[in-house]
Amino acid sequence: MNMDMNASNPLSLKEVHVKDSFWSTYIKLVKEVVIPYQWEVLNDNVAEAEPSHVMKNFRIAAGLEEGEFYGFFFQDTDLAKWLEAVAYSLQTTTDKELEKLADDAIDLVEKAQQPDGYLNTYFTIGRMEKRWTNLEECHELYTAGHFIEAGVAYHQATGKRKLLDVVCRFADYIDSVFGPEPGKIRGYDGHQEIELALVKLYRETGNDRYLNLSRFFIEERGQEPYYFQEEWKKRDRISFWDMRVSGPPADRKKYLQTHLPVKEQKEAVGHAVRVVYMLTGMAEVAKETGDSMLYNACKELWNNIVTKQMYITGGIGSTSIGEAFTFDYDLPNDTVYAETCASIGLIVFAQKMLQIENKSCYADVIERALYNVIISSMSRDGRHFFYVNPLEVWPKASEKNPVKKHVKPVRQKWFGCACCPPNLARLITSLGQYIYTQKERTLFVHQFISSSANLEIDGKRVCIHQTTEYPWYGNVRLELELEGREELELAIRIPGWCKEYTVRMSGKEQLREQAVVDNGYLILAGEFTSGTFIELKLDMPVTLMKANPKVRADAGKVVMQRGPVIYCLEEVDNGENLSNITLDPDAPVSVQFDSELLDGAITLITKGYRDVFDEKAAQGDLYQPYKKEREEVSIKAVPYGIWGNRTPGEMLVWVRI
Amino acid sequence: MNMDMNASNPLSLKEVHVKDSFWSTYIKLVKEVVIPYQWEVLNDNVAEAEPSHVMKNFRIAAGLEEGEFYGFFFQDTDLAKWLEAVAYSLQTTTDKELEKLADDAIDLVEKAQQPDGYLNTYFTIGRMEKRWTNLEECHELYTAGHFIEAGVAYHQATGKRKLLDVVCRFADYIDSVFGPEPGKIRGYDGHQEIELALVKLYRETGNDRYLNLSRFFIEERGQEPYYFQEEWKKRDRISFWDMRVSGPPADRKKYLQTHLPVKEQKEAVGHAVRVVYMLTGMAEVAKETGDSMLYNACKELWNNIVTKQMYITGGIGSTSIGEAFTFDYDLPNDTVYAETCASIGLIVFAQKMLQIENKSCYADVIERALYNVIISSMSRDGRHFFYVNPLEVWPKASEKNPVKKHVKPVRQKWFGCACCPPNLARLITSLGQYIYTQKERTLFVHQFISSSANLEIDGKRVCIHQTTEYPWYGNVRLELELEGREELELAIRIPGWCKEYTVRMSGKEQLREQAVVDNGYLILAGEFTSGTFIELKLDMPVTLMKANPKVRADAGKVVMQRGPVIYCLEEVDNGENLSNITLDPDAPVSVQFDSELLDGAITLITKGYRDVFDEKAAQGDLYQPYKKEREEVSIKAVPYGIWGNRTPGEMLVWVRI
Repeated sequence: MNMDMNASNPLSLKEVHVKDSFWSTYIKLVKEVVIPYQWEVLNDNVAEAEPSHVMKNFRIAAGLEEGEFYGFFFQDTDLAKWLEAVAYSLQTTTDKELEKLADDAIDLVEKAQQPDGYLNTYFTIGRMEKRWTNLEECHELYTAGHFIEAGVAYHQATGKRKLLDVVCRFADYIDSVFGPEPGKIRGYDGHQEIELALVKLYRETGNDRYLNLSRFFIEERGQEPYYFQEEWKKRDRISFWDMRVSGPPADRKKYLQTHLPVKEQKEAVGHAVRVVYMLTGMAEVAKETGDSMLYNACKELWNNIVTKQMYITGGIGSTSIGEAFTFDYDLPNDTVYAETCASIGLIVFAQKMLQIENKSCYADVIERALYNVIISSMSRDGRHFFYVNPLEVWPKASEKNPVKKHVKPVRQKWFGCACCPPNLARLITSLGQYIYTQKERTLFVHQFISSSANLEIDGKRVCIHQTTEYPWYGNVRLELELEGREELELAIRIPGWCKEYTVRMSGKEQLREQAVVDNGYLILAGEFTSGTFIELKLDMPVTLMKANPKVRADAGKVVMQRGPVIYCLEEVDNGENLSNITLDPDAPVSVQFDSELLDGAITLITKGYRDVFDEKAAQGDLYQPYKKEREEVSIKAVPYGIWGNRTPGEMLVWVRI
Repeated sequence: MNMDMNASNPLSLKEVHVKDSFWSTYIKLVKEVVIPYQWEVLNDNVAEAEPSHVMKNFRIAAGLEEGEFYGFFFQDTDLAKWLEAVAYSLQTTTDKELEKLADDAIDLVEKAQQPDGYLNTYFTIGRMEKRWTNLEECHELYTAGHFIEAGVAYHQATGKRKLLDVVCRFADYIDSVFGPEPGKIRGYDGHQEIELALVKLYRETGNDRYLNLSRFFIEERGQEPYYFQEEWKKRDRISFWDMRVSGPPADRKKYLQTHLPVKEQKEAVGHAVRVVYMLTGMAEVAKETGDSMLYNACKELWNNIVTKQMYITGGIGSTSIGEAFTFDYDLPNDTVYAETCASIGLIVFAQKMLQIENKSCYADVIERALYNVIISSMSRDGRHFFYVNPLEVWPKASEKNPVKKHVKPVRQKWFGCACCPPNLARLITSLGQYIYTQKERTLFVHQFISSSANLEIDGKRVCIHQTTEYPWYGNVRLELELEGREELELAIRIPGWCKEYTVRMSGKEQLREQAVVDNGYLILAGEFTSGTFIELKLDMPVTLMKANPKVRADAGKVVMQRGPVIYCLEEVDNGENLSNITLDPDAPVSVQFDSELLDGAITLITKGYRDVFDEKAAQGDLYQPYKKEREEVSIKAVPYGIWGNRTPGEMLVWVRI
């Protein structure tokens, strides 16, 4: 395939204005609570949070204070992600005060940069001689990648070059250290991230050394001789990770996605976040270079993830040990990991794939993750987060069974390893990027989020206004604002879950037979005039979903889904012991908008049964002869994304049938 | 209660001769394979087994060789358990060659004993000054306990006093070191065992210092000030266990059953083997001292275990992390631990309880464990063992999902930590002890195992001959051999699973109305003559069992049980993906004796369904709308005890309904 022919491009975040009743809550929360709160955390001003020490580390590294480094070796990235989130936020909202904070922070970052361009406070504070000696474990290039992303975003948002210059100097220095040339280090980072960041830097600066360096890191991964083996020889291995992610070298290689060259990998293995960050970098390099083998590897791994290793909520990563994928169809609901960051990475990866090939499967996965696992990960106060996103919670088991202790029944305050909340802030502030892309005269509508967007076609301004009450209702209105008559094409995604829909153009019904659906997108092409409006009505019946029976954990169980929203049962509505409930698949389901439930949400009411156990007949025995005994109960299901915001208790996504 | 009034006593192992078609296979295996093989392992003569070094450690400790200690700090116990198994074996079978090996080993043990009576090669080889400094972790008294058990058993078997004298000297020394008196250590072992052993030593020697010392260890446990805290202060904590069994001190206390004084404990918590060893010691002391509070604590914990924390196979211990109990009704089938040693300990504890109060619930649990988890733990070659006894196995998950890696789909060779195989050898060689007990003129028949037993009533010899094809058939024949007419009482257990039975005495039907059943025992009292025979016929229909719905892991599932035998499905009979099968509870079950299956076993054939998934309609999606689609399949179930002896694959006990 010729990728350039199919590629579409995202609109600038500045040109997309989200004003959506569902998402505005979260966007507001991120802007008004998460970003300011995170700033306080970075500055150790939050008494109840674990010490962050990030700004202090930078002040020490800049020579402004005395002291020791404190925190994880990737502690710096908290600031980088904060700056990136601030940049996205500033692209859509002016906030001089916030910009001032960021500018000051950037001044400090610049001061902490070494004369050679190096930037990483973990190493610059007293460990300079250890630089680049432990790429496997120390996240050195990963940290660089986050600063590069921040530098690009801040330049795009404000036009200010200071951070961009800082990261260019850093990237130039990295380029002088790493590469295939003799005398350079032929290595790569244990945690992928710089690969995708370098492509962003290449696009922002036009300097193709950055693209080449990214490609080098990607292609070097998994080659023989094994770089990390060489590293081990040169130093004592750090035992912490050995203990945590134990096992023979083969497992370790898989944990790091270094078991094979990336183009030969067929299954997603190891640490889930690393996999999707790697794939994002691969897709970006494939797009820019036209490397179809690289792109095919992306597709292969995409298919493996979404058809064999993805939870119905959009979560990925089946085990807490190594925060990792396990193997095809192994999707335990109770010992699950499904880290928030991994799903964010999956969304970013999907977006890159979507920009190479306009296939609705990518946007479908973005939608699945956004409305379920992502929404779930943050509380409605913006101060509590799920790092792990389980599909089944028994609070007592989380407390008392060690294999479930990572599964928290309530959202937690900021974390010691605080990767998820800032990552979430980055995603939510950049949500506008996921709604539309453009390819020449075609405007793709990928997500249904009320918003306006400006673009240019043939030098003429085109504006699209989208209004919808998604995800609760399937009506979407798109209105065009044009300079005059315009020959263009609208490509509107028909979600994978949607079996029936109608579309009207300026009030006139479009017959299904006339509609062209290409790769999951409804194509409306022709000459449009300003004021043309399209009314799309996606039928949203409640559907019971089942999993491929190879998913042993979901055998005999179903999930209630309506539109993109996955439902779950909570103890607060259904009493304790949710596992004891069976759902009647033939019972009608009542769809009720509950305006009291948080900001209002659709709940589902249906009928089911509870098994009865004759405690008396059992005479205290745990086990007794089976008799079919059950009592009818009413079942209430709420959107998975908002679970755990009321009385804490059990939660269950997959319900017995 | 007055415990003495109710207590019954076991018959000497010498007086019980097992000749049972079911058990003889296992007894033979232990005598002819396990015990000799273990001896070779102890002597490092088995090339493929991990080095044991046990005999070498003793030779070094005895000054006969130079070298370093090697192995776990409780490595000595492998020899102690072997000697105990040999002793039991010698009680029923003469074997001069084996006795010579044991005598020589005992000579060596005596040589390794220190002048003060101390015996433990881990400490005597180069760590003498560390003795008694780490009771929490080093199993020092636990190891002593195993030697005491061996010394008692060997004396009973052979009349030889050498090992008994060795352990008496050791126990006397321990008694001089530990106790409530000023100057003595007011501590106890991290791993209970010596408590039960000291009661045996008291019975064998009549020396009540041993009983008092046992009572001291039991009563001191869990008292404040916390002994192990005092120990920690005196030394650096060993980090290995800290890492493995992490968590705050409260968890650590529970792991060791030191969170409360033992009489105040209401729930079984922490390391499962320690719990049941502790309870055995407590029951023994309660029996000997009449301490009813202690006995009540035993009952409380017994009830907690068997009514809330026991698998249907008789396994206990819900998590591999700490090899521990978790909490009530938490019985995951796939991340289960259910260590073989824990069930052996449960059997021993149950036997002690049964000797205090003749209630069939105790013998029922012994039966449940014997015919299921115990049988399962050993392969039919006597050289492979399950340490963990799962109720659900997906071999790929054992390989690739870290929370299941302790669950082995095939039995393993001898282990580095080889506690289970020798423990199993002890149990199987002492099986005769579990069949009968006597209380004055009453002979209790607890287990249905073909055997003859001799006892004395009023100075007259009574012999009982039991013949049965248990567990496959419910016919039991008991014939009495008497010196003359004898006034006596037979109390025959009616198993908890048995709802219908008939009994005939010397060919004459006994009416149910006439039969007295007391605490689960059918009482047949009167004047008997020699040749009187009782024919008991226990109906053994196939029963589908369900769990209390509070056991979330078993929701919507049943187990096939026939008599005491729990059935399971194996992949070799039912194809892969056993989770995808539902059983039709209304379908007839065909009971078939399969003489080809190992030594012959009853298999069950019934009807069920497999869910169908339309891969084409799903178009590669993992999830698709639910439709009730299934195909009828034949289901074959085999006894759980013999699973994993054919082609390796999936296994499932709890089947969907």
